[in-house]
Amino acid sequence: MSGLPQIYTAHVFVRLKPGVNDPPGATVAAGLRDLGFDGIRDVRVGKIVDVELVAPDAATARERVNAMCEQLLTNPVIEDFEMELIEPQPLKLSDTAW
Amino acid sequence: MSGLPQIYTAHVFVRLKPGVNDPPGATVAAGLRDLGFDGIRDVRVGKIVDVELVAPDAATARERVNAMCEQLLTNPVIEDFEMELIEPQPLKLSDTAW
Repeated sequence: MSGLPQIYTAHVFVRLKPGVNDPPGATVAAGLRDLGFDGIRDVRVGKIVDVELVAPDAATARERVNAMCEQLLTNPVIEDFEMELIEPQPLKLSDTAW
Repeated sequence: MSGLPQIYTAHVFVRLKPGVNDPPGATVAAGLRDLGFDGIRDVRVGKIVDVELVAPDAATARERVNAMCEQLLTNPVIEDFEMELIEPQPLKLSDTAW
């Protein structure tokens, strides 16, 4: 790995912890039942935060997004998160021909 | 596959289409910059809807969740969705001993 900064995309999936009350989820479940959908047992609503950032390497990108989650993106009292970091496509000389 | 109903979990990921204005994403990006995070290029916010439903087989479960997305969970004018269907663990006779 070179130390040249690259563009990383992190998909952060934030969900309420199990057992935490989820009024939006209950509302969606009720709406689906009203529309005639049968067999709905549970609905939970969460959020996605897709962050595009410049970092020198994947480990640093991961560390920074973790810090973002702790400081702003999630409420650790009631929410859990998972992160999926997309490896950047390295630029090739042939790309510059376009 | 037997025709016995099983419990499926569908993870639905709803995101704004590319180019659609995303004020919550812009607000999160500004907040992260205010906290001192550098190198943020873009932030987009989406939602997760986790649906637990009873269906006779995976194809039916998938079809039903697709219909839910079209009728209630997403706004097809401005949003795209992806679905991930979790295969249920089949019940085994040994499970009933517990």
